This record gives sequence, structure tokens and C-alpha cells, in this order.
Amino acid sequence: MNEEFSVTEKTRVKRIPKRAVYDRETINKILDEAFICHVGFVAENQPYVIPTAFARIVDRLVIHGSAASRMMRSLSKEIDVCVTVTLIDGLVLARSAFHHSMNYRSVVVFGKANIIEDEGEKYEALKAFTEHIVADRWAEVRPPSANELNATTVLSLELTEASAKIRTGNPVDDEEDYALDVWAGVLPLNLTTGKPISDDRLKNGIPIPQNILNYSRKK
Amino acid sequence: MNEEFSVTEKTRVKRIPKRAVYDRETINKILDEAFICHVGFVAENQPYVIPTAFARIVDRLVIHGSAASRMMRSLSKEIDVCVTVTLIDGLVLARSAFHHSMNYRSVVVFGKANIIEDEGEKYEALKAFTEHIVADRWAEVRPPSANELNATTVLSLELTEASAKIRTGNPVDDEEDYALDVWAGVLPLNLTTGKPISDDRLKNGIPIPQNILNYSRKK
Repeated sequence: MNEEFSVTEKTRVKRIPKRAVYDRETINKILDEAFICHVGFVAENQPYVIPTAFARIVDRLVIHGSAASRMMRSLSKEIDVCVTVTLIDGLVLARSAFHHSMNYRSVVVFGKANIIEDEGEKYEALKAFTEHIVADRWAEVRPPSANELNATTVLSLELTEASAKIRTGNPVDDEEDYALDVWAGVLPLNLTTGKPISDDRLKNGIPIPQNILNYSRKK
Repeated sequence: MNEEFSVTEKTRVKRIPKRAVYDRETINKILDEAFICHVGFVAENQPYVIPTAFARIVDRLVIHGSAASRMMRSLSKEIDVCVTVTLIDGLVLARSAFHHSMNYRSVVVFGKANIIEDEGEKYEALKAFTEHIVADRWAEVRPPSANELNATTVLSLELTEASAKIRTGNPVDDEEDYALDVWAGVLPLNLTTGKPISDDRLKNGIPIPQNILNYSRKK
């Protein structure tokens, strides 16, 4: 596997190129911390952007859904797709309105998705998908039946054309603005978990599993 | 202003229509809690999905950026755009792999964006934009200069074609699966703030403002 993605006309970061990252390890790390992507595609000349859960499996992204959905029907035709994954790390508060910014890590992937048709491969993809979102969940739950597998379309998008954009650290103000009596800095933002809420119909005596109690997206 | 958005072929929620919401108050509430959107557009036949900050100003969404960016250049041509806003509220852990889900609130807006050309209107839009992301910030910072205003493109998208999709509550399992010895429920997810980090070059004696210390997206 390449250490760096080749830069293409589509993936070249044009605005603020110093924020661009093309190395696979950094991109994989962002993809693995995230679990929601925004899928962009065109249907009848209209762009659509649909949020959905995803997982990285080695050098592919997988998403799934009902075969009846517009997204799955459209993407199954192997049309061009753009999948964007965004993690927001903080608000960057500068001394001037103009230099306010965000700390973030985002990945944009281009390509064409393929349906995973093979039953065994589909099952393994759904397992990896579930495990990406909640580690150690698969072994605890009832696995999909043949009917459930049939009702689910799993799409795979190869990670061949991808780039990341990252901003970290302090605001960057105009030199003369550093003298202003304005508080400046970063307000960190994190995705955190609340207390797990047991289902109303939970059987008695089933404890909340450790993987739920200790859930975190940070590795 | 209409209480409900008209449902169009584009905004009709086809998958799980019981999750669809078209009323303006609910949609506005989601838009106002969020501050990041994913903008979908087509340039040279290729869909792009770009994350960016946004604000709602009455019945419009505004985004801004450098006039040199691909997104701003493309959208300035008044092409079709799809703007999606997603809030993730929790992981829904069912007794079967198949019924795992997420609690979320998302809004999809279709339309064509317009450049705000008028200087005064642009200034007011940037002010509202800043205030949407950090309330009470505008009065504390240096406002944009004429040069900074010129370097910024502000785009406005009217909220005329929009829909929301919302899932809340417990997992919904197959009836026979409720007998399984599997923990099921919801793991709430929240966007939370960390401790504000003052800029390395902050002047002595400037306290962290209350709006930063008490920052919250919930109204």
C-alpha cells in the first residue's frame, strides 16, 4: 500500500495548501476516529448530500443501507461519489472577526462505489462496520439472518483518491492586533458520551457492557 | 413565513418517512444548534462535499469563504446546491446487528446560493454569522476592515426547499429478540467543550469571557 495518496486535480487542496495532508496513516486515523460521513452524489442533475455511518476496512470505506433508498440506488450505478468525513476539534477565537477559524480534521474521498455482492464478503463487511462503530459488539448480538442480509445493500469505496485538511493550534492574528485587549485562544470541542440509557424492555439482570461504559472514539 | 415547508420530489423523505419533519420551527432549531454544514455541489461533472461553518439568518443560510476557493467560485455561479446539517445524538444499540441505529437530527436544504454584494448587508451577515457561532463575540473583537470584507465572499441560500429527518428513542427490535440476554439501549453522544486554551501571546490580565466559559450549543 502506498504511504502517500497521489495528488490529483480533485484532491489537491487549493485553499491554504499548508493544511493539506496526503499521507495514508494520517487519513486512516481521521477515518477511524469518525463514524459519520457525508455522501455526495448527483441524481437527475441534482447534488445530494446524505449523512450516514461508515467504516474503514483496510483500504476501503463501506456504507450500508436499504436497497430501496435513493442513495443506495444511485450509488449502485457506479456513479462518481464524494465522501467527506469531518471532525471538529475546537473554535479558534481571534482578536479580529476576520481571523476567527476552527480547528478540524477532514478527509475527502473521490471514486465510484461498488456493491459487495458476495454473501460472505458482505457478512464480513457488516461485521467490520458494526465493530468500527462499537468495538466488541458483534459477538454480543444476534447476527444478521439471510433475509436481513438480502434487505441490506453494502457499498464499498476504494481509498485511492483521498486527501485530508487539518487545522490545529492558536489563532493567527494580524501583528498589530496582538496589542488589542481581546481574549483570544481555542475552545476545544469534543464528542463525549452521556450515561447509557437501558432500553425500557431490557431483561432484568443484564449489566451495561464495559465497551459501552468506556466508549470512546479516541484510540 | 410558512409554518411548513412544501414537500417536493427532492425533499420528500422516502426511507422511513415517519422520521421526516417539514415544519419550520423544528428545522430552524436544528439549524441553530448546529454550526457546521456539508455543502454539496457539482463542478466539471464531479460532486464535491465541503464542510464549512454556517449560520441561519431568519429564512436564509449564510456561508462565507475566500473568493478564490473552488466552492465559492462554483456556488457564485448560482448552481444547484445541497446543504446538509447533521447532529448526532446517540448510538442505538439493539439486540440484533440489523437493528442497530443512531439517534440524529439532520436537515437537507436545496436551492441556489446568491452572493451578498451589498456592503452593508455583507457586514451584517458576517456579524450574524459570528454571533451564531459564538454569541456576544462581535462586540469584543476588531470588526472587518474594507480589505477583509473585499477578500470574503458571503453566500446566502434561501430556506425554501428543506426537510429534516429525526430519530429518537430506544432501539426497535424484532419481537422474538427481546427475550435475548443482550444489553440494549442508547448511548447518548454530545458535543462538549474542554477548558478554554488562552493564546500563547495573550496580553496579561485578560480574563476568559463568560460566553466562552459557558459556551453551549443547546438553547
